This record gives sequence, structure tokens and C-alpha cells, in this order.
Amino acid sequence: MKAALVVTGREIVTGLKRDALIQPFACELKSCGAEVAEIRVIGDSPDSLWATLSELAMHHDLVVVSGGLGATPDDTTATVIEGLKQRAETCAAIANPVGSAQGVDLDLGGVRIVFLPGVPRESLVMIKTVAASLKPGVEQPVRLTAFGLGENRIAEMLGEVGQRVSYLPRDMEIELIVQPADEAAVRAILGEHVLAAPSLAEDVGQLLKRRGLTVGTAESCTGGLVGHLLTEVAGSSDYYLGGVVSYANQVKTGLLGVEADLIAAQGAVSAAVARAMLRGVLQTTGADVGLALTGVAGPGGGSAEKPVGLVWIAVGSVDEQLVTSLKFGFDRAGNKQIFAKSALALLRKFLNANPGLHRG
Amino acid sequence: MKAALVVTGREIVTGLKRDALIQPFACELKSCGAEVAEIRVIGDSPDSLWATLSELAMHHDLVVVSGGLGATPDDTTATVIEGLKQRAETCAAIANPVGSAQGVDLDLGGVRIVFLPGVPRESLVMIKTVAASLKPGVEQPVRLTAFGLGENRIAEMLGEVGQRVSYLPRDMEIELIVQPADEAAVRAILGEHVLAAPSLAEDVGQLLKRRGLTVGTAESCTGGLVGHLLTEVAGSSDYYLGGVVSYANQVKTGLLGVEADLIAAQGAVSAAVARAMLRGVLQTTGADVGLALTGVAGPGGGSAEKPVGLVWIAVGSVDEQLVTSLKFGFDRAGNKQIFAKSALALLRKFLNANPGLHRG
Repeated sequence: MKAALVVTGREIVTGLKRDALIQPFACELKSCGAEVAEIRVIGDSPDSLWATLSELAMHHDLVVVSGGLGATPDDTTATVIEGLKQRAETCAAIANPVGSAQGVDLDLGGVRIVFLPGVPRESLVMIKTVAASLKPGVEQPVRLTAFGLGENRIAEMLGEVGQRVSYLPRDMEIELIVQPADEAAVRAILGEHVLAAPSLAEDVGQLLKRRGLTVGTAESCTGGLVGHLLTEVAGSSDYYLGGVVSYANQVKTGLLGVEADLIAAQGAVSAAVARAMLRGVLQTTGADVGLALTGVAGPGGGSAEKPVGLVWIAVGSVDEQLVTSLKFGFDRAGNKQIFAKSALALLRKFLNANPGLHRG
Repeated sequence: MKAALVVTGREIVTGLKRDALIQPFACELKSCGAEVAEIRVIGDSPDSLWATLSELAMHHDLVVVSGGLGATPDDTTATVIEGLKQRAETCAAIANPVGSAQGVDLDLGGVRIVFLPGVPRESLVMIKTVAASLKPGVEQPVRLTAFGLGENRIAEMLGEVGQRVSYLPRDMEIELIVQPADEAAVRAILGEHVLAAPSLAEDVGQLLKRRGLTVGTAESCTGGLVGHLLTEVAGSSDYYLGGVVSYANQVKTGLLGVEADLIAAQGAVSAAVARAMLRGVLQTTGADVGLALTGVAGPGGGSAEKPVGLVWIAVGSVDEQLVTSLKFGFDRAGNKQIFAKSALALLRKFLNANPGLHRG
């Protein structure tokens, strides 16, 4: 099935707002067998919409239009819908569970034209109804999140199955939209790269919550990003106590008790300092488990032995720790993201490898 | 001048990648007098591109095409360019200062068709050349960043001038693209809402660096986001020492020395606790100035007196502090962002109000 999208709204063509619908719409439709072949973004004129729909209806089986269903003067889509209704063979409403503007679903001589509101919060829910209707009675696709592999590598590993998967990369994590029949194969091939929750922060959070454990963080190069990610999850105060951002060495020493001599001997970016930071945050916060990381985000600060992109991560409890180093090649912002996510992934690995760890 | 954009690439129509060009392209062109009236996203087929260009050339003065200039098999735009060149009255190259694929600039009977690479890092530089050529000899637009006002409120305040401004909202800050002749008026109307740098974190960073001051952070509800924002700026280790993420009360007490009795009496979200957190972080990190914040990001944790969206912020030095409360109505993620940015804005206000504050 060949589909087209039309996004209406002057604020998008003039650059006032960034489009937030094209990628998720295309993904949702693809996951139910409708390949989007063309997307058009136009202003709020009913004439443009009419002309656009006339052209697209000639070459597509499904056209999804978003925007202009509200009540303000720039909401002119209603005029076009009224005109089309008179020629439509069937006309149905699409329920809006989170807002007031219903969607409209028309059949015009075998071409299905669907109108949804422009508000992403509403239309991102409603597009799922539309996608589901393309395969009635069929199970909905499964959403998995993977970490630790790029989307091209995942597609390569999945081979033929991968061609039926949609990939939505999201800050170093990748959401996979998978056909139910392929789920087992995807899980088997990707193994532990598939998370048990929609994000690393939620996966780690669920593991901690289930076992009644608390966590503390000691961050250097990430500047607080790990704590920010953990606290993006509502309810994270159940397990996240907080920690220290020891950006300067004097804070590593003063607040985490890392010996100045150790920093002088090994350098701030080292296994020993990561381990000492972890020990310090466990002690000062009283958390059951912790994570610590120290690295070079760049662009400055690198050396031959300790290049930009290098990070040392320590995770664990007072009794047992995992310490590892990784090297990445992103820019400063990308390195910070992948460092933080890698620390969460290592903590997840530690928790999964120590299933007996529960609060006393 | 009426313009259209064409974004080519199968990865965008199928939802594999999110478009990153539409909004900045539309903004850049608008800032030089070309209003984008229509945008089309299509796959990699030369036939589709040919048909799309034929249609758009009928109703537009300028068509900007991105993508498909590289050397991989899906880069099929070259075929179309070869065909068009034979009919073009003029054909010029557009320099690519950051990559290998040059742009192509054709005049087809009064319609200008411009081809740029699809890689955002390259085409976002090159679109500025294209925009500048629309007003040769005219000064380039000025980029200002504003904080503390929504884009609709800014447009309203700017009145007639505001209609010549482009607005690019970015995580609670707003980039304004302004005609040089309007800059003074915009600055006069928006006053201190216009930052001295492209972001709050850079503005605060420059103020600190210029005066040789160091800063420490004590964060509760934002979980580390303020530290993350400060350390997004390369070179922030010159002034950012770090601090404490005191998400749990035991960390406020243990690491920042906030008295448990004070928390019990006033509540964790209070002016007194924000002030005590600030005092604690100044003392333990030895920073010259600091900021502290404690609030309710939601969705849970609110009460009648201390609703979701309330935040207390304290900034200042050992000698002088500014303490304030604010109330917002975003979701958890939005509240965290606006809390963090508001704390940076208050620190900026404090530094600007104390011009004599220098290190030693």
C-alpha cells in the first residue's frame, strides 16, 4: 500500500516550528504495511490543500493529512473536508482519546483520505488507530529498544527480518518497531542489546525498584547528565538518591574523598579514579549501588594516552565493582550522551549479573 | 519571492531518520526575503524528483533541493541535474566549505533551482550562502537569543517589527533571526530578555570566565540538568567546579549540610532549603558563586501549597544571595528544562547586578 502524508500549518513552512509528525507517522504506517512515498508540507490555504490532495490521490492508496481541525481562523481544513464529504463513498470519525478534535476518515473511489489534528500529543495517539486499521484483526507491532549497536549494524545483523523492522534512533538508543511474528527472532539475534523497558534509565530504574535498591552517581565529564537521565523517569525518587558532579579535581577530593595523590599519579581519567569516585559516592550517599565515570568529552583536553572520546566507568556496590574503559568518536555533545548511556548500560549489566542483590 | 523546498532521501520518507533541514532552511530563506510556500519530501527516484521539480517550478521563483549529491548508488540527483543543465540559462557551483560535494545553482527561465547536499552539517552552512545571495550587498541578519518569554509573546511585543523576525524555539530559549535595521528596536523592546551569547549556559559562562569566577551547583528536582547544560559548553572546566545532586533529603543533609530539622519544618521545597543548599555547595566546593534549586517537577509529589511546577531557586555568593520562587505548567520534562534555565537566568541576573564581583 502506497501512502502520502500532508502536514498543514503556516508555522511549519515558515520555519517557526519544527515538524514533529513526519518521522513517527512514517514509522507507524510502515509498521502496518503502508510505505510512505511522498510527504508535503503546506500552509493553511484551503486551495493549496485541495490541489495537493487532488495530485496525491492520483498516485497513492492512502493520504494522511494533519492539522487545521481546530477552531481558530487558520484552521481551514474543515472547508476542504466538507467539500470532499459530498463525493465520499464512506465517511467515519476517528476517536481522539486525548483532545476534542475528532479525526475524519473518507473513502474517495478507493483512495482513503484521513484527517488528524496537528497537535502532536493528539495525532501521535490517533495515527496508531489509523495504522492498526490497515491490518484489522492483526496483532499490533511490538516496540523494543536496543542499545549498544548502531541502526545500520542492527539491520545487518537482522538480515532479512530487518527489512520488516522500523528504526527510530533516539539519543544513542534505538526504538525498533517489530512485527509480532519477528519478535522472537529479533530478541534472539540482538540478545542483551534489547532492553527490558523503553529506555536505559527506565530499565535500570525498574531493576532497582523491584529489588528495593538505591543508587548514587559520581559524574565528571558528563556534568550531571546521568542524574538528569535517571530523573527523567517519573517516580525515580524511589531509588535515585543523587550524588556528586565532580567536574574539578578539588571536588573529586573534597566531596568524594578521592586522594589528590592518586589523581596526580594516575590522572583524573583512569580506572583507579573511577573506582575511587564510586567508593566515595557509595559512602557519602549511603546508596546500595552506584556508578562513577570520568572521561574526555572534547574537543580539548585529550592527549596521546588519553584521547578525546575515552571514558572510564565504574559501577557496583561496596562489595563488588565492575570497571571498564570505552572509546568513542562523537563530538562533545555526542560523547557526553554515549558516556552517560554506557554507564547506565554497565550498571544494568551489573544488576543483571547479581540477581541476589536486594536491600537487606 | 516565493520559494519551495525539496528534501530527498528514502531514509526520511520511510521514517528511518528525522528531517533536520526543513525548519532551518525555511528560517534562513525567510530572513532574506524568500517565503517558503511548500515543502516536499520524496525518495531517491530521479523520476519523482523530475516530476516534483516540474510542478514546483510552475508556481515558485526559487526551489531548493537537498540530498543525493554524493557518490553512493542512492545518490541519483546528479542524473536530474545533468538533464536540467542542458536547459539552464546559467549554471554555477556553490562552495562547500566543510565537505566535498559542491552545490549547483541553475537558472531555468527565471526560476532558480539550487541543489545542496543532504548532510545537515554541510547544507546548513551552504543554505546561508544561498540566503545571502538573495540580498546581495545587504548585511546579513543578526542572530539573537531570548529567554523568559514565549515566541507568541515576543511577536506580540515586537508588533510590526516582529513580522520581519524569524523565531527558532530551542528548549525554552528562542533564537531570533533579525534584520540588521531592526536589531536596535528588538533589543530595546526585549531588554534584558536578549542574551549576550547564543545560550544561557554560554552567557553565564562568559560572565564567569571574564571575571575569573568559579561556580558550583546544588540541584534537587533537576537531577543534574543544570550541570549538564553548563558542561555542554566546551571549556566550561575553566569555571564550573561541579556540585551536588541532592535528590533525596539524606543527601541534602549529608553532602550539603542542610539541617534535617529545617527540611522537616519548612519542607524540602522552600526558600530556606534552597538557601541552605546554596550555602552548602559554596562551602564544600569552594566556588565563588553558586546556584541551588528545589522544586516539584511532577507528575506526582505536588500538594495544595506546593503544587507541581513550583520551584525555589537561590543564587549568589557567600556575601549576597538572590532567592526566588517560580511556578510553571509544563510536563515533567518541560518543568525540569524551565527550572534549570531559570536558575541559569537568575545567576546571570545576579552577576550582571554585581559587576564588581571578581576573583580575589
